[in-house]
Amino acid sequence: MESDNSRTRAPNRRTRKSISRKIGRSLPINARPSPTEHSPFLLAPAGKMALRGALCLSVAIAVFSAVSRRPVAAAGLDGSREADRIIALPGQPPNTLLHQYSGYINVDQVTGKSLFYYFVEASVDPARKPLVLWLNGGPGCSSFGIGAFREIGPFLIDTDGKTLCRNRHAWTTAANMLFLDSPVGVGFSYAVNEEVYKTMGDNMTATDSYAFLLRWFERFPEYKGREFFIVGESYAGHYIPELAVVIQINNKNPNAHIINLKGIAIGNAILEYLEEQAELYEYLWQRTLISDSAHETIRQHCKSADDASAVCQAARDTAWLNTGDISAYNIYAATCHDKKVSATGSRCTDLANPCAEYFSEAYFNNPMVKKALHANTALKYPWVGCRTTTYNLRRFGDSPPSMLPHIKALISTGTRIWLYSGDLDAMVPVTASKRSVEKLKLAVAKDWRPWSTASGKDVAGYVIEYKGLVFATVRGSGHTVPIDQPERGRALFMSFIKGHELPSSAPQTD
Amino acid sequence: MESDNSRTRAPNRRTRKSISRKIGRSLPINARPSPTEHSPFLLAPAGKMALRGALCLSVAIAVFSAVSRRPVAAAGLDGSREADRIIALPGQPPNTLLHQYSGYINVDQVTGKSLFYYFVEASVDPARKPLVLWLNGGPGCSSFGIGAFREIGPFLIDTDGKTLCRNRHAWTTAANMLFLDSPVGVGFSYAVNEEVYKTMGDNMTATDSYAFLLRWFERFPEYKGREFFIVGESYAGHYIPELAVVIQINNKNPNAHIINLKGIAIGNAILEYLEEQAELYEYLWQRTLISDSAHETIRQHCKSADDASAVCQAARDTAWLNTGDISAYNIYAATCHDKKVSATGSRCTDLANPCAEYFSEAYFNNPMVKKALHANTALKYPWVGCRTTTYNLRRFGDSPPSMLPHIKALISTGTRIWLYSGDLDAMVPVTASKRSVEKLKLAVAKDWRPWSTASGKDVAGYVIEYKGLVFATVRGSGHTVPIDQPERGRALFMSFIKGHELPSSAPQTD
Repeated sequence: MESDNSRTRAPNRRTRKSISRKIGRSLPINARPSPTEHSPFLLAPAGKMALRGALCLSVAIAVFSAVSRRPVAAAGLDGSREADRIIALPGQPPNTLLHQYSGYINVDQVTGKSLFYYFVEASVDPARKPLVLWLNGGPGCSSFGIGAFREIGPFLIDTDGKTLCRNRHAWTTAANMLFLDSPVGVGFSYAVNEEVYKTMGDNMTATDSYAFLLRWFERFPEYKGREFFIVGESYAGHYIPELAVVIQINNKNPNAHIINLKGIAIGNAILEYLEEQAELYEYLWQRTLISDSAHETIRQHCKSADDASAVCQAARDTAWLNTGDISAYNIYAATCHDKKVSATGSRCTDLANPCAEYFSEAYFNNPMVKKALHANTALKYPWVGCRTTTYNLRRFGDSPPSMLPHIKALISTGTRIWLYSGDLDAMVPVTASKRSVEKLKLAVAKDWRPWSTASGKDVAGYVIEYKGLVFATVRGSGHTVPIDQPERGRALFMSFIKGHELPSSAPQTD
Repeated sequence: MESDNSRTRAPNRRTRKSISRKIGRSLPINARPSPTEHSPFLLAPAGKMALRGALCLSVAIAVFSAVSRRPVAAAGLDGSREADRIIALPGQPPNTLLHQYSGYINVDQVTGKSLFYYFVEASVDPARKPLVLWLNGGPGCSSFGIGAFREIGPFLIDTDGKTLCRNRHAWTTAANMLFLDSPVGVGFSYAVNEEVYKTMGDNMTATDSYAFLLRWFERFPEYKGREFFIVGESYAGHYIPELAVVIQINNKNPNAHIINLKGIAIGNAILEYLEEQAELYEYLWQRTLISDSAHETIRQHCKSADDASAVCQAARDTAWLNTGDISAYNIYAATCHDKKVSATGSRCTDLANPCAEYFSEAYFNNPMVKKALHANTALKYPWVGCRTTTYNLRRFGDSPPSMLPHIKALISTGTRIWLYSGDLDAMVPVTASKRSVEKLKLAVAKDWRPWSTASGKDVAGYVIEYKGLVFATVRGSGHTVPIDQPERGRALFMSFIKGHELPSSAPQTD
């Protein structure tokens, strides 16, 4: 399998490939690596479009897979609860009282698929707190390396790539957090037979994740029946509704293990990818990040959201180059200019550093860290946050053009559904997400209003409550809300798992 | 004269007045206090519209005034260079080697008009550096209190309202900076006969400012003939072009003192106020800060940019309330919740505090500070950053609906003209400014490109160079660029006074 560490490749600026790498690296939780790598997807090859929004088929495949391929011991590593216990992570702050586990669960004997998880019990009173599965997107991004160690876990990695810092906004004070590297080939997850990566897609991801959950509950039986939520972002806009549908269908089977799924929440969710990509340039233009002439050229040459003509692609590429070195994932964020880890570290004062992904890669490629995590040290490629050359939307199978049928199906089961959008993300623009939600034609239960992290504080965003779905924005955040607005992200999460309304914002001041 | 300190008024929330106060306070360099206080201006009373864009008339009045009312000693305070020297300001850091002056120059004997200035020589080699006049807007805002002590002067005021902190991004390293409280009635400037405030408008402001300059050069003769620039923001979009036109016309008079005006630069300039106000709600909607329904109501009920009907005003008020307690001057800024000065101060670590205007008011109302500044201590009202109940667009005379004729006239004189826009300002949205500039139909000399604070660094904004005018955006800044993006603001200023292109931004990364 190829290395996805783009630092090993020679720079090739001002070409389509360079744009793709740029976006891929600027924040690795990418929806897809580049607006210039669309064409195969835009052409919509028939083989990839088995679902095309046909939820029944998707569900049928998932159910079938879950039943026919019962999780069994496989050729890969497979742990036990006690073997998975983490004694201490290298560089962990002293006096850390945390119950952490990590290791593998095998989900398929034939190909030797092993899914890597990291589980952190709530820091206080875990028995009374819900269980939350966090999933990053990509496809190809590590929920463990990004979600747990850059977003919402108990630790963040310092600029030296060695020291762990306490995360003041960790979600582990509120919930028992389970991070899953999914599908195999992502992060520390793998398959003995790597050929399986070539056939990977949404359905297999959902099937394997469901199989993982069944076995994980066997390993942690006190969580059986616990209130369960799935939260994540970006391409998890596919993973989460698909897995939730599989769970809800299986829960109806009298012989199945019941997973007490209460709700799902997805940030900057990829729901209708082509629409979101078409909106990207509108979004940039309205914020005066591309010129009128670049915008006009796109208007003239791109006939539709899925126009894959050379002239349209060229217009879009030019427009994107026109923006300069900004991140499509947060249009106002600082840029990473020095990708080396710092010799001394920042002593945990620089956690918002735009180069954080490089500190993660240094940390997770340290053999001592891999050992402490019980990760497979025999993998032939380095750990990367996003394995985007193996997995991206060009190659990922069963990726429906619209996730709205899944959302509708989940609303009908009474699953709590929250969608939220960091409003500075150009990759999955809030304006596109808002339009997708409006297409559901749900009745408004409580109209648009500003919300806050706590009653009476600054406006953290806006929220509109529909019957069956809550849509919230997070003001001043890009694609990854817990990185850009950790306090707002955590407040939103707390309200979500409690099923509470978001707090009101401060009244008008005089 | 009434006090404009809104803290003395009882709060009256959710009314038009409260919205006006809110916006007025949220950042005091306001274009006008409230979108709800437009109607008298929107109705365009004939008496106020003497100019209506008729530049020749404006210029004629200004020239006439400058000639007929020669600056003479008046009934107010009037200093001398040595009397104006500031020994030290209370709370000033030790070992400050600065030549600072402040005091009054009388510009009219009849009404006793005295204009207050603060002048700081460049910290190194002042004789080889240009002279820059800085003007804040409003109308009614203090260039001294806001411009010098919150934006670009050598000191900023700490959270205790007592201590002065060094401003790392002061423009005084690059230029000799002159701050003028203009017109009379603003900041420490005053008229003995306060009735004159009622007749104040653009023309009298330009006339008085020109008269001020002539006398100021007599007091500081070594600056006669020095390269001279005028820079400012907001309603200085009126003041600056008008004063510049007066200077350029008078410079043609063989008997007049020549002011060596090289250029003007204006940030978030009010150029076409009605268009900018109409754009406000589009701007907020595109950034998902108001709901679709509020936006749709405006579309239905507001026929044009100057629709002053009750139903349109109500729609706009509702939309604005809909945003919650955010600032129209920087849509992503933090809000000031505690308006008290802090007992201990932050030791100069919290200079981005959103409550900074309250620290300024505490400082400038301290009698020891007034004395050190040679300010008139006999004024019957407190010092405020913006005297918006005395001066706002409702009452301000001779305010042309479009400043484009002035800009064109200045282009024809070869005056360097830079317009820049913090792109997070909703009051004078970058989108509206861009449109105004496009109306000038200037030839493009160098097309849209990203710029940076120094070659190869982050994208600081975008710039397009026309023949005769440079238009630049400042990425991630609200209405007051030097407060929100001090490094970017200073880099832009440096390029402007040197007449250099803005530095290129970092190349695309891999």
